Amino acid sequence: MSDAIDDIEEEEAFGISDKLVSDVMEAVDADADEVVEDLVDPLHPADVAHLIEQLDDKDRKEFLRVWPGGIEGEVISELDDNLREEVIDSLDEEELAEAVRDLDSDDVVDLIEDLDDEQTEAVLEALDDSDRALVEQALTYPEESAGRHMQVELVRGPEHWTVGDAIDFLRSDVELPEQFYHIILVDPRMKPVGYVTLGRILSSDRKTPLKELEEDSFRTFNVEQDVEEVAQAINHYHMITAPVVDDDDRLIGVITIDDAMAFLEEEAEEDILRLAGVGEGSLSDRVIETTKNRFPWLAVNLATAILASLVIAMFEETLSGLVALAILMPIVASMGGNAGTQSLTVAVRALATRDLTDANVWRVVRREVLVGLVNGIIFAVVMGAVGYFWFGNLTLAYVIGAAMVINLAVAGLAGTGVPIILEKLGIDPALASGAFVTTVTDVVGFFAFLGLAALWLL
Amino acid sequence: MSDAIDDIEEEEAFGISDKLVSDVMEAVDADADEVVEDLVDPLHPADVAHLIEQLDDKDRKEFLRVWPGGIEGEVISELDDNLREEVIDSLDEEELAEAVRDLDSDDVVDLIEDLDDEQTEAVLEALDDSDRALVEQALTYPEESAGRHMQVELVRGPEHWTVGDAIDFLRSDVELPEQFYHIILVDPRMKPVGYVTLGRILSSDRKTPLKELEEDSFRTFNVEQDVEEVAQAINHYHMITAPVVDDDDRLIGVITIDDAMAFLEEEAEEDILRLAGVGEGSLSDRVIETTKNRFPWLAVNLATAILASLVIAMFEETLSGLVALAILMPIVASMGGNAGTQSLTVAVRALATRDLTDANVWRVVRREVLVGLVNGIIFAVVMGAVGYFWFGNLTLAYVIGAAMVINLAVAGLAGTGVPIILEKLGIDPALASGAFVTTVTDVVGFFAFLGLAALWLL
Repeated sequence: MSDAIDDIEEEEAFGISDKLVSDVMEAVDADADEVVEDLVDPLHPADVAHLIEQLDDKDRKEFLRVWPGGIEGEVISELDDNLREEVIDSLDEEELAEAVRDLDSDDVVDLIEDLDDEQTEAVLEALDDSDRALVEQALTYPEESAGRHMQVELVRGPEHWTVGDAIDFLRSDVELPEQFYHIILVDPRMKPVGYVTLGRILSSDRKTPLKELEEDSFRTFNVEQDVEEVAQAINHYHMITAPVVDDDDRLIGVITIDDAMAFLEEEAEEDILRLAGVGEGSLSDRVIETTKNRFPWLAVNLATAILASLVIAMFEETLSGLVALAILMPIVASMGGNAGTQSLTVAVRALATRDLTDANVWRVVRREVLVGLVNGIIFAVVMGAVGYFWFGNLTLAYVIGAAMVINLAVAGLAGTGVPIILEKLGIDPALASGAFVTTVTDVVGFFAFLGLAALWLL
Repeated sequence: MSDAIDDIEEEEAFGISDKLVSDVMEAVDADADEVVEDLVDPLHPADVAHLIEQLDDKDRKEFLRVWPGGIEGEVISELDDNLREEVIDSLDEEELAEAVRDLDSDDVVDLIEDLDDEQTEAVLEALDDSDRALVEQALTYPEESAGRHMQVELVRGPEHWTVGDAIDFLRSDVELPEQFYHIILVDPRMKPVGYVTLGRILSSDRKTPLKELEEDSFRTFNVEQDVEEVAQAINHYHMITAPVVDDDDRLIGVITIDDAMAFLEEEAEEDILRLAGVGEGSLSDRVIETTKNRFPWLAVNLATAILASLVIAMFEETLSGLVALAILMPIVASMGGNAGTQSLTVAVRALATRDLTDANVWRVVRREVLVGLVNGIIFAVVMGAVGYFWFGNLTLAYVIGAAMVINLAVAGLAGTGVPIILEKLGIDPALASGAFVTTVTDVVGFFAFLGLAALWLL
């Protein structure tokens, strides 16, 4: 088992090895500060954060105690949200101040969002006056807005600049962002009008006007725009930098592709976990937190399962008449639940990626119902045959076949209809659709199967 | 309903409006070539592709017939894989040649992967000799490898260059990539040794050696490395350009962040769909294709549902003795299935993102089993009470309570254990875990509930 994992790791493109994690834990246990430092110092901040996430509670506390000089700001901003508080608590004031001073304003904002008031105060106090003003400004924009997540460090220039003007400006002692890939051209009212890649500037003559080097396609985003939308737009249009403007169309920041990428990854992750009813939470959560996170969805499921049982109870007499019904009925419900989940997952993702719109909604719903019908007919034949040979009862075979067709067609309808309706009502379809759809397929499955049995068999 | 959608659309950051889609369809129906051109010409290629995906079969054929001059290469490479063949078929040889000549070599490779032999031949013939050689070289690397997806257009320079050397080189009439953000420094054997962002070059004096401007962190990736790993590394380390090397460590290409982003989005999408047993396929597939795609998972589910029914059949006598058992038994199975899906989704994602490793595997499994136990006990009490008040049978309450605890703990174990074992066996856990886990929870749920009932009740 351990050999297989080693083989896999040799092919890995990034991250830290299990061996490194255990070496660090050993050194931490032995209180060998210097060994810990030698092992951890060469790592990229993202890897240090990953290492901290891999440690269990006890080891993590030990590691933070042994680690000399406190954790860097970049490591904190790479950490899982739910570990940040703990790590920040382990720093004294001076260490915290040093850590946050390294960070771009957008990273500080991101960090503050997960902290309690006292820690937020401590972080804000640790900043320079100008940085603090920027962070406080960003915090005035709505959560999940472009304004909250934009980087205010950017390079802009007037539209009339030439390549030479741009180079002279960049070579002057002006403060530049850590990373930048475009110069954004603005008009005298600070409204962005286009942008030029640094590659174009570098490969052109000093006298060339920047206007001539502008990219074909240029878009700006309002500061209150949902940041997920901006991130999807960055992906859709292959942008590297997305300029953010205020309500007067003035340039006030940018969202960069690496932040957009991390953001979309988190969103996809969230969707996956929501579809499974897991909600928030991470691998480093404790049993009690995890139990709390899982509980609500299970409670909803219990309620819907009881509802389904009430439907079964309506047919108590039918059931006592023929025990084969009790044996076969979970099959109809289970097939409906699976088919419904298939349709619903496709619909939820298509809504998220904007492939499902008013223009094609009826086509998609019709297709899913037809798919349910066709698969329903196939499985009706299969299951009818199985039922006949198992219990030697032809009518029973008709009953299960008919129930199968009905439930799979309903699964297609509910699987697409429920998320579409939830979306229109402003409820996240990834979060709530699953419970509704399986309730529908359970109820319809049991009702159709037992109801038809009551009509035809007894 | 339509008002709500309009409100949502006003906030959208990208894409095309439903109105545009219907305007285009109207113009297509009226054979109004010029109107179509006026509407579609200003769109970004990604939006044209999106428009084509929104049309149904008939409208799409009409659109491709009416659209003057044939589809651009960039539109084809933005299209859903399963529509590419159709669109390419609609082009004559000359149009196809023109379309593919616009594309970077990596986009041509990506396109060819989905075509049949005849179309591949046609595309290859349409290319210049040098481009064809590049594409054919890329096709020799394994599918899903960095070599297949890398862009060979890049800018490199010797380590001893100064800023001035770099600018002079870029201003010479050398052919440059459409987009580039770094100069990669190579040693005399073409081995990459570091890179410099264009921002650093532009803001430094001509005499500055590039060596002094190098980024701190620099990584290269082998040409046979899994491209998903490279994309995850790009996200993990916030890289913009990932250099790709051959087995002799010579620089042969780069993977850019925008491609990596699109790639990770597709992978997350695939994982979501696989977890739901949907498999390949897209919203524009026809009923028959969709039915085929959904069928295998439903067939597996039927087999496992029959297996569960066989377990129920073992307790035929117990069931005929007390109809309440038939009414309550789906609740135990359903709760186990949901709890198992929660654990399994967390485990599958944690495996994909490398948060679940040998270092913490036992901790995670133990946590999931404990979470199952705790939630099992809570729901045992609730369901025991419900069962008692419903059927007035205290022993029945104990039976369903005990079965609930057992099944939820087993769900935690199977939910983590199954994906971990599948991963070790080299099987994609997203694809196959669901069927195994719900089989386990169904079988254990029915067996525990009916078995305990047989022991204690009758």
